Amino acid sequence: MKLEVVTIGTELVLGQILDTNAVDLGRELAAAGVEIVRRTSVADRPDMIRAAVAEALDRTGFVITTGGLGPTRDDMTKKEVAAIFEKPLILDAAVLQSLEERFRRLGRAMPASNRTQAEVPAGATVLPNPRGTAPGLWVEEADRVVVMLPGVPSEMRGLLAEEVLPRIAGRGETAGIVVRSRTVRTTGIAESALAERVGAIEDEIAPLTLAYLPSSSGVDLRVTAWRLRVEDAERRLAAAAAQLRARAGEHVYGEENADLAATILDLLRANRQRLAVAESCTGGLLGGRITAVPGSSDVFAGGIVAYADDVKRDLLGVPAALIKAHGAVSEEVVLAMAAGAQQRFGVDAALAVTGIAGPGGGTVDKPVGTVWLAARLGNAARALRRVFPGDRGEIRARSAQAALDLLRRLMGTLA
Amino acid sequence: MKLEVVTIGTELVLGQILDTNAVDLGRELAAAGVEIVRRTSVADRPDMIRAAVAEALDRTGFVITTGGLGPTRDDMTKKEVAAIFEKPLILDAAVLQSLEERFRRLGRAMPASNRTQAEVPAGATVLPNPRGTAPGLWVEEADRVVVMLPGVPSEMRGLLAEEVLPRIAGRGETAGIVVRSRTVRTTGIAESALAERVGAIEDEIAPLTLAYLPSSSGVDLRVTAWRLRVEDAERRLAAAAAQLRARAGEHVYGEENADLAATILDLLRANRQRLAVAESCTGGLLGGRITAVPGSSDVFAGGIVAYADDVKRDLLGVPAALIKAHGAVSEEVVLAMAAGAQQRFGVDAALAVTGIAGPGGGTVDKPVGTVWLAARLGNAARALRRVFPGDRGEIRARSAQAALDLLRRLMGTLA
Repeated sequence: MKLEVVTIGTELVLGQILDTNAVDLGRELAAAGVEIVRRTSVADRPDMIRAAVAEALDRTGFVITTGGLGPTRDDMTKKEVAAIFEKPLILDAAVLQSLEERFRRLGRAMPASNRTQAEVPAGATVLPNPRGTAPGLWVEEADRVVVMLPGVPSEMRGLLAEEVLPRIAGRGETAGIVVRSRTVRTTGIAESALAERVGAIEDEIAPLTLAYLPSSSGVDLRVTAWRLRVEDAERRLAAAAAQLRARAGEHVYGEENADLAATILDLLRANRQRLAVAESCTGGLLGGRITAVPGSSDVFAGGIVAYADDVKRDLLGVPAALIKAHGAVSEEVVLAMAAGAQQRFGVDAALAVTGIAGPGGGTVDKPVGTVWLAARLGNAARALRRVFPGDRGEIRARSAQAALDLLRRLMGTLA
Repeated sequence: MKLEVVTIGTELVLGQILDTNAVDLGRELAAAGVEIVRRTSVADRPDMIRAAVAEALDRTGFVITTGGLGPTRDDMTKKEVAAIFEKPLILDAAVLQSLEERFRRLGRAMPASNRTQAEVPAGATVLPNPRGTAPGLWVEEADRVVVMLPGVPSEMRGLLAEEVLPRIAGRGETAGIVVRSRTVRTTGIAESALAERVGAIEDEIAPLTLAYLPSSSGVDLRVTAWRLRVEDAERRLAAAAAQLRARAGEHVYGEENADLAATILDLLRANRQRLAVAESCTGGLLGGRITAVPGSSDVFAGGIVAYADDVKRDLLGVPAALIKAHGAVSEEVVLAMAAGAQQRFGVDAALAVTGIAGPGGGTVDKPVGTVWLAARLGNAARALRRVFPGDRGEIRARSAQAALDLLRRLMGTLA
């Protein structure tokens, strides 16, 4: 099955935001064996929206749009698509009712402008959107389909997964053929060092392709099977992933969307152990990473953000003399921070981070990017110094990931 | 001047990478007064590349492509564009020589596959690319122009700035003409309610256009001047922004890329006041937001992530009886958390957040998304209950922004 995507928004053509919806649509549709033959972006202008959607419809007969469904006047997709199908917009009583209920639940009166969100092209199927006010719309007539989704990424993703993909699977044109990827996630090793370890695997895994994808969480190894039968793709991907895992060894922390924080929480939960953190340069991001995992509260007790040195002393019990002798960014201080957090929260495991995230504060001995990390589990402790590249945001993100990885490796040696 | 952009790459339609070239092209061309009327993305397939470029050329007569200029499998953009212009590909001696020199400099032998990179459509202008092996190409005939740029972002940006924009400016159609935007940032008010306050301003500001851009940090109001003379655009944008600020009133916290955390830090720094935070459901994100601002350490002392109830009691001094009587997500507890942080860190200002970020933990009285926020400044305190929509990540991001906004508003009433 083939289709086209039209993403609508002036901010997209002016380069004011990245088109993350294009990524989500591309990935999810490919996984479902659907080929996107073309993707078009146009500004919030009626004539441009109509031309782009009508041309895409003429070429492939199936178009998914994102954006232009909000309550304000710059949102015009619905009207233009209705015109292409020569249908009037009519008020949908069920949509109006669910909108009114939504506002009641949030304890607010519904503004009149939201009423237009209850208008749909006559005969359209309404795709309920529990995450927002604009429902998705599926307009179909004589083998021509336009599916309109909202531009807010979380709403778009929800509707795609819950309403659009099941309907597309039901059309039966994609039976058995997939474009499918599998990802092995590594951290704590640079891309070039990882490439040396993995070696020239590309010929062995052909026709699968391999990509190295570095980011602040490490280097992902992604193998892709292109338009193979599902069983063949799965068999080849499993074999390639097993080979990659074997070669990358202890640097692998999971597959697909595995999150190192979730991995750590699972390991601790299995041992009935609890965790606390002490943060300086990450300023709360490490706690934020951990608590981003639903259900983290049974393992994570809390943390202390000790941004000022007197807080390291008063709340974490780091001796002032230690800070004076070695500096706040040192092995001695990071170990004392971890011990202080462990004791203060009365927990089994503790992580600590202290470093220089920049842009200021670097010296010759301790340049910007210098970070000391520590992990404690019971009486075992480990500290590590890293010098991270990147800007302030990247250094902080890499620091949080490296702290989690230090605990993973410590637990591995103790297991 | 108007043109279309065609970005070429299978990874783009499969959603494996974000199209950052689209952002760079959109931003740079808009600043130069060029309007991108449509942007198209296609896979590395000859027929699709040719159709997309030819159609774009028919519509606007000027097309910029990115991608498909590499040395191997994807060396197809050049061939398809040459075919559209009915020109042969010929070996360019100067390009070949500079390629050979480049390889010599890197101490490597030039692979035979790179020779094809020296082939150009007959009559094309070669745009030198010092950052990579593929030069840009400018093909022009009878008022039809196709400019081909490599897909590697740093090479694309370099060629755009150094070779393409100067040539476009030299065409004289864009002298002094710009597409320019201005953004007024609001928070603490829903899109539809904001639209009611702003009213039907679109007619008054025409030919400028207005877009409402909601996100977890609030609703941005973006006005855009399309292809006006620069002085005219600036004058109209300033007038429109002033009107929007007046109508949106106290909900405005800044313009352009203003960050509410930076705004708060500036306000506190001016009064020589220091800040601490107490976080439950945000788990460190609020501290993370604040410390993302370079130089935050002179204002921000630190924070306590009190994820477990006993931490709220032991580290923040919240009476256990209060938690028992009202629940951890309550006005009483959030105010006690803020007071505890203020006292514990010995600071002037404190923020506290406690809520139910989901997906579990909601009740009829306190559904998922219920968040209590508190701000303290000296002896003044304010608490606020909000019920945020969205998933766990959005609820947490909105909570951090709302906490910062509560302090902004409290400082406004005390000023």
